Amino acid sequence: MVAADKVVLLDSMFSMYGMRVRVALAEKGVEYEFKDENLLDKSTLLLEMNPIHKKIPVLIHNGKPVCESMMIVEYVDNVWKNDDSPLLLPCDPYKRFQARFWADFIDKKVNDSQKKVWTMKGKEQEKGKEEFIEALKLLEGELGDKPYFGGDNFGFLDIALVPFYSWFYAYETLGNFSIEEHCPKLIEWIERCMQKESVSKSLPDPKKVYEYILYLKKTFGFE
Amino acid sequence: MVAADKVVLLDSMFSMYGMRVRVALAEKGVEYEFKDENLLDKSTLLLEMNPIHKKIPVLIHNGKPVCESMMIVEYVDNVWKNDDSPLLLPCDPYKRFQARFWADFIDKKVNDSQKKVWTMKGKEQEKGKEEFIEALKLLEGELGDKPYFGGDNFGFLDIALVPFYSWFYAYETLGNFSIEEHCPKLIEWIERCMQKESVSKSLPDPKKVYEYILYLKKTFGFE
Repeated sequence: MVAADKVVLLDSMFSMYGMRVRVALAEKGVEYEFKDENLLDKSTLLLEMNPIHKKIPVLIHNGKPVCESMMIVEYVDNVWKNDDSPLLLPCDPYKRFQARFWADFIDKKVNDSQKKVWTMKGKEQEKGKEEFIEALKLLEGELGDKPYFGGDNFGFLDIALVPFYSWFYAYETLGNFSIEEHCPKLIEWIERCMQKESVSKSLPDPKKVYEYILYLKKTFGFE
Repeated sequence: MVAADKVVLLDSMFSMYGMRVRVALAEKGVEYEFKDENLLDKSTLLLEMNPIHKKIPVLIHNGKPVCESMMIVEYVDNVWKNDDSPLLLPCDPYKRFQARFWADFIDKKVNDSQKKVWTMKGKEQEKGKEEFIEALKLLEGELGDKPYFGGDNFGFLDIALVPFYSWFYAYETLGNFSIEEHCPKLIEWIERCMQKESVSKSLPDPKKVYEYILYLKKTFGFE
């Protein structure tokens, strides 16, 4: 890391997309300033740095903004290459494609279905739970017997998925179901990831996430 | 290219997503077998090769499937590296991020708005036209005075956008508007791209696309 590097992260504590970036920066040993955004009253800096999507997370590296969580993870991987930190994206073209494909799958299917679990009730919520479990089972199949998605080393796809774990307690409590019952191997993988400080220190307490969700539900009337 | 390489493309002639892959393969000088899919009666091969999304394009390289158009373009870029063909994705981490960011913007904003232009009528169609032009203007701003999006060389982001040109005639005819009037520099960029055989030979005749759209509108009742 160049001494003059200035790294700022516009983020929000309970965002799984922000967590992805925090995990990647921790894996690479990059120091940064964390700026907690109020998503109900976004800062001028956020709107200037991400005028198209107006969303966190945004990484500001020496004044230049990088946004969209997995694009930031890739940027971090490309900029901070050193012997002490592993590459997050595989070099092999096919493995690289597989990592990207499943990260995109998470952004679409896991993200869509998890929202239904905590914002809906009744049949809609049941449908959300089914879709959520189905998506996780496909990911469990992709993991197979490997310790991490890319093989022996923690990497890109692990970073894409593991932040959702911090929301599992809330999904299970609000949806009255057990994720472990359906996906025991995925839970083992989570426990393996949580042994890494880069993960455990970047993810908030699941009970705090649950309280945050209750606050969101009350504020926005998802009942 | 290894002599034993077998490359098959599951595609559909008028798909801009398929065109992206055709342009990338042509840029790299990769020979392949084109298999035209009937999207109303998808082949067993397509369903086997892309069981998650069940969509074209799918590139089958020595039996292994790669899907999602820009992931295929990146895969092609990573596999066929040689002195005769240029790199499609920039090496510089920030330029690489910018190429990905705008390609993703096209997949979201340009894609959503263009659909409204040719499937809707009245106010909905007007809204689609506005959003479509606004998205193209942002892209024109990103192009600036450069010959191609990445600078002096045709690359990743050019490939993401240029196939939409083959649908412009249909959008303009059905929406009764002129794209050139709003985005003259983008049209100059298209003319520059069309001078490349990799592009001109991979894109279908815009009048044929228009006939195809009329057929879709009639068949699916977008009126």
